[in-house]
Amino acid sequence: MPPTRQLHLGAFMRPVSLHTGAWRFPGAWPDANFSFRHIKRFVQTLESACFDAFFMADHLAVLNMPVNALKRSHTATSFEPFTLLSALASVTERIGLIATASTTFDEPYHIARRFASLDHLSDGRAGWNLVTTSNPDAARNFGRDEHMEHDERYRRAHEFYDVVTGLWDSWADDAFVRDTESGLFFDPDKLRVLDHKGAYLSVRGPLNIARPVQGWPVVVQAGSSEAGRQLAAETADAVFTAQPNLAAGKRFYADVKGRMERVGRAREHLKILPGAFVVVGDSRDEAQEKRALLDTFVHDDSGFASLSIALGHDVASFDPDGLLPEVPETNASRSARERVIDMARAEGLTVRQLAQRVGGYSGLQMVGTATDIADEMEQWLVEEGSDGFNVMFPYLPAGLDDFVAKVVPELQRRGIFRRVYEGTTLREHLGLPRPGNRFFENR
Amino acid sequence: MPPTRQLHLGAFMRPVSLHTGAWRFPGAWPDANFSFRHIKRFVQTLESACFDAFFMADHLAVLNMPVNALKRSHTATSFEPFTLLSALASVTERIGLIATASTTFDEPYHIARRFASLDHLSDGRAGWNLVTTSNPDAARNFGRDEHMEHDERYRRAHEFYDVVTGLWDSWADDAFVRDTESGLFFDPDKLRVLDHKGAYLSVRGPLNIARPVQGWPVVVQAGSSEAGRQLAAETADAVFTAQPNLAAGKRFYADVKGRMERVGRAREHLKILPGAFVVVGDSRDEAQEKRALLDTFVHDDSGFASLSIALGHDVASFDPDGLLPEVPETNASRSARERVIDMARAEGLTVRQLAQRVGGYSGLQMVGTATDIADEMEQWLVEEGSDGFNVMFPYLPAGLDDFVAKVVPELQRRGIFRRVYEGTTLREHLGLPRPGNRFFENR
Ligand SMILES: Cc1cc2nc3c(=O)[nH]c(=O)nc-3n(C[C@H](O)[C@H](O)[C@H](O)COP(=O)(O)O)c2cc1C
Ligand SMILES: Cc1cc2nc3c(=O)[nH]c(=O)nc-3n(C[C@H](O)[C@H](O)[C@H](O)COP(=O)(O)O)c2cc1C
Repeated sequence: MPPTRQLHLGAFMRPVSLHTGAWRFPGAWPDANFSFRHIKRFVQTLESACFDAFFMADHLAVLNMPVNALKRSHTATSFEPFTLLSALASVTERIGLIATASTTFDEPYHIARRFASLDHLSDGRAGWNLVTTSNPDAARNFGRDEHMEHDERYRRAHEFYDVVTGLWDSWADDAFVRDTESGLFFDPDKLRVLDHKGAYLSVRGPLNIARPVQGWPVVVQAGSSEAGRQLAAETADAVFTAQPNLAAGKRFYADVKGRMERVGRAREHLKILPGAFVVVGDSRDEAQEKRALLDTFVHDDSGFASLSIALGHDVASFDPDGLLPEVPETNASRSARERVIDMARAEGLTVRQLAQRVGGYSGLQMVGTATDIADEMEQWLVEEGSDGFNVMFPYLPAGLDDFVAKVVPELQRRGIFRRVYEGTTLREHLGLPRPGNRFFENR
Repeated sequence: MPPTRQLHLGAFMRPVSLHTGAWRFPGAWPDANFSFRHIKRFVQTLESACFDAFFMADHLAVLNMPVNALKRSHTATSFEPFTLLSALASVTERIGLIATASTTFDEPYHIARRFASLDHLSDGRAGWNLVTTSNPDAARNFGRDEHMEHDERYRRAHEFYDVVTGLWDSWADDAFVRDTESGLFFDPDKLRVLDHKGAYLSVRGPLNIARPVQGWPVVVQAGSSEAGRQLAAETADAVFTAQPNLAAGKRFYADVKGRMERVGRAREHLKILPGAFVVVGDSRDEAQEKRALLDTFVHDDSGFASLSIALGHDVASFDPDGLLPEVPETNASRSARERVIDMARAEGLTVRQLAQRVGGYSGLQMVGTATDIADEMEQWLVEEGSDGFNVMFPYLPAGLDDFVAKVVPELQRRGIFRRVYEGTTLREHLGLPRPGNRFFENR
């Protein structure tokens, strides 16, 4: 064990960047959505910097926004995660590969099989970002009129998790003896039929794939509601979360780790990784200029639509180049609304600038020199705001290359981030134990 | 266009071979089920021989046979096809990659996305082996007590095909303009919402992935019933079929091509590829010895179980080393029963030898020198028994290497098989046109 707590870094990726204006940034690769060559280049660079994992967000519908805004960004289409991450598995050696999959719109037998298969293909580098799916439009692509109710989604998710992990345990780790002499390929005593019958799912098993290399692939949770946090505390190996600042991060961290203790889990068996949008410059000014330039690439059609949704009020009547006027009360999400209004006041943003910020990216950001960013990350780690971050790059490839060339060496110099991979599996990178098999002791 | 009709060759693969005794053959790799390294070696060798495609069978349950027989073979577990073929996409350049996916136990939005994604990742080499799933045990892994009735499965399959191809057409080929200057990423006039509502499926769309490189990935059908052949004639680009001999192959070929003409399709727009189990030797005797040796590796537990199922009669009371006695009439499939009895009589097989044949592999086989095998393949081609074959290798790697080193050059010498890939996509390898988009003309 290294002497100080170590930072864990995931790369939270969309092929062109999560920022909706990034495809227009000078030097960006707007065609990365369907360019395997580009994505291979990204993941190999991240691996050279010893990132814990490469993580693909995923959605089961085109984003739910007006086509007038949608057409302005690169986010409508992209590769499907299992196919992409499997292709990346064969061009990488060590980096973890985390795919998003929905418990609301898929079947546990398929999910258990695919992650097990990715885990075998990658020699133990697979992770499952378990989501209940937030985009309500997905329902209509899967034969339903309405999205399943929020808490019910989480009840199904919990049962789904139980079934998937149960299927992963279908075979003991040493079930396959392959004795050519006697002709015994597997030991039938090391095979179990799950025979699950529950409120939402009925799945017999066994899984037609050997137990994953990691026992169970790493399970990640990304919900922040009461039900989401509880599910994470009970089951997850890592949590991805959107936290606006360190104070909120510390509350979230204490809350989830406290819930873990109450269900009898060790605090260090779950890593909390908030998303952080990182813009590196050789000076603070340069970093801030890049950040500001990026926002100018968010088209008005997209920015004003996003701002109107966030405020719950159509901003068309506002002067785009004036400061934000008083906004009438509405029944939009109050916390989202206040966060946006506070941001406008604090930074003195015009309506257009605010729209560009909200339409582009407006969550936690770290903008500055490599030292500034390392300071901030170290503070989160030391003060228990997080166990690391899911880094979002503002534009690609330059934003990623800057982070790898400048911030990573600074973190390594401080002794809070690895210089070489010590383990081979994603569980080992994250410092997580390999789960035992519920049916077979010590295997 | 080459002057003579060309043979098309797929490799119909299980990682260790389809023959259940193959893992015990001298020099075989019994651990290939979870060894990406081995499978990569197979596919790269096939690509060096210009095979049209690599094709993975798939099942959504452990094979439905007694565990006592199951434990004797390598067929119970393996990689999942999408993850495996995607990983293979990044270590190959030209060979087609065909994955099996079920219309009974999956969702059209998932299937359309994954094949589109594999098609983008592989630059147009994806194919879908559309199956309705024959193993009734799969139902119990997907929340159902019983398998859907045969003809209903095919009605759902047809609607499923319509939805998947409709989703592939969501975007015009030139929808993504990516104009950084004006900030227009896609042209909204080149996006269509499918809005399908049918007897079995209700799917809104659009798909969140660009139109596949091939327009539509190649669609393959593997059913041979009346309903299966009709679906193939109406929709498929290729048919995989089990035909016991040339006479049966010619009848099947004429039947399916005739059905195509009646629905207004050109005969050459569907390739018929029967499965052929090929054992190559430097002499006929050597080939036959290898074939016989292979069968001895089928364990009695597995052979007698398979033979009892095929005959509809428990063979435990028969003398294993005697000839097959009279078998009482039963209500097992009559054609399967008679085929097996005829085989025993024609070749003078003992009960054990017959059991080993049936438990190992008992369909169409070509056993002989490279010249013998090329003669036989050429005859099928010339007499319109097929447009090529799905080759099954008896054991790996040697059975595959022998085919590539000996039979392929002989086929090339005769001018009926390519020496280099002329096209880049699987459609081009198979000589199939790229489908137009139902919503957008000439695109
Ligand atoms: C960092 C982060 C990443 C997420 N990624 C996805 C994703 O890729 N796909 C998805 O459908 N939902 C994603 N979500 C949404 C969550 O899974 C969840 O559905 C949403 O936060 C609502 O859940 P809650 O009500 O528990 O907060 C993500 C959420 C966060 C915070
Ligand atoms: C060559 C061949 C390959 C097949 N591969 C698969 C397969 O991988 N998975 C599967 O579930 N069924 C497979 N099948 C079964 C068929 O898809 C189909 O379900 C079966 O032949 C019964 O259909 P039918 O009643 O139309 O003949 C295959 C059949 C043949 C002939």
